[in-house]
Amino acid sequence: MTVFRQIATRLPEESLIYLGDTARVPYGSKSRNTVIRYAQACARLLLAQDIKLLVVACNTASAFALEALQDSLEVPVIGVVEPGARAALARSRNRRIGVIGTVGAINSGAYTEALQRIEPEVVVHAQACPLFVPLAEEGWTHGEVPRKVADAYLQGLLAEGIDTLVLGCTHYPLLKDTIQETLGPKVTLVDSAEETAVTVAQCVTEMRLSAAPGVMPLHRFLVSDAPESFQRVSRHFLQMPLLAVEWVDF
Amino acid sequence: MTVFRQIATRLPEESLIYLGDTARVPYGSKSRNTVIRYAQACARLLLAQDIKLLVVACNTASAFALEALQDSLEVPVIGVVEPGARAALARSRNRRIGVIGTVGAINSGAYTEALQRIEPEVVVHAQACPLFVPLAEEGWTHGEVPRKVADAYLQGLLAEGIDTLVLGCTHYPLLKDTIQETLGPKVTLVDSAEETAVTVAQCVTEMRLSAAPGVMPLHRFLVSDAPESFQRVSRHFLQMPLLAVEWVDF
Repeated sequence: MTVFRQIATRLPEESLIYLGDTARVPYGSKSRNTVIRYAQACARLLLAQDIKLLVVACNTASAFALEALQDSLEVPVIGVVEPGARAALARSRNRRIGVIGTVGAINSGAYTEALQRIEPEVVVHAQACPLFVPLAEEGWTHGEVPRKVADAYLQGLLAEGIDTLVLGCTHYPLLKDTIQETLGPKVTLVDSAEETAVTVAQCVTEMRLSAAPGVMPLHRFLVSDAPESFQRVSRHFLQMPLLAVEWVDF
Repeated sequence: MTVFRQIATRLPEESLIYLGDTARVPYGSKSRNTVIRYAQACARLLLAQDIKLLVVACNTASAFALEALQDSLEVPVIGVVEPGARAALARSRNRRIGVIGTVGAINSGAYTEALQRIEPEVVVHAQACPLFVPLAEEGWTHGEVPRKVADAYLQGLLAEGIDTLVLGCTHYPLLKDTIQETLGPKVTLVDSAEETAVTVAQCVTEMRLSAAPGVMPLHRFLVSDAPESFQRVSRHFLQMPLLAVEWVDF
């Protein structure tokens, strides 16, 4: 949803279809093969809605499934890893970059690869933070418990002298305050949502995919489980009244 | 697996088929409808293996799907809620019982219902502990973080004067030490695994379903994701060498 919000802000004339695979989340602890299968099922459902571009707005799915999706789909497919890596390189001064994410995203090595493909000499320290997603989902983002957890995960990165940290999971911006407090003011946090929206906007322009002028944009929200609780959370999170959340089975 | 171990110990001549839906766990945060659909898919797969009895060794699935499974299947179906409730009533002296579980299991009201069906006057205090499953899965079972989390969840139950606490999720026995430490020695913890195995043994005897004598039992382990990591964890947990873990897609 952090990515959805950024794209909707940057491309206000485009109609967006959001698909949340709420029945099968979290993806972060699943194997590569299972994430690829689920990502392909999500993509099939969205393609049937006649989309012109697909954004994989999940770091784990981007890390494991982006290539498979790009190879098999006829529309452009944009992930969040590459934009996050570029944003981090633009901000780091000492070329020591930390990356945090799910077990899947970190073990895939996707961020380290993306960072070093752009700049081979950059030093990358990656750390899986599996408890951050459940903490964020429970709304346990401030106070003693998340601070202790952040401490346990992040002290090692601090000791490595990083000056930039990529929040390599779309849930982590919710824990931004606690993470920043743990790392101190000298470390810059990078959220890939904004940079991903920039990439999407560029792609839409370059490939001449922009919506026809004067057409009223319409956003749709699809989820595979519990549309009511999604609606409750998203209304608060997106700060926009949602027309409807549809349940889809796939 | 706590339930598997108890059944295998109590019925050493029976062949067991274990199915772990590792691709779609955790069930604890999913809606009733989705849990029922997934439980029915699991049951179909096991029925195709010609089982004579089905144990729903998950509190959330037992809470949401037991009735639907019992109505639709031709073999006996045993859940973990009823045995857990009976075990708690057998141990409580002051008739004030606490129950902890996932959001799904607690919101379903299944434990309160089962306890008060057997003994209408019993006082039940239920508390969802959504962070306990990820803590247990991460092996974060001892030390400051789980202690703080347990404190936040359990102080309210302690204030209600409970003398017995049902561990209403098959992951929670891994956090037993921390939970006991938080509640103090006067509160008895009840794990439904043992009592479930007793129920299974009774059912097998009463319905004359026992294995033919002299047949060598064979256990099978099926999972829907990541058989290797399941094998690693289960070897440690069951303290038995596993022959093989098979991946199944359903």
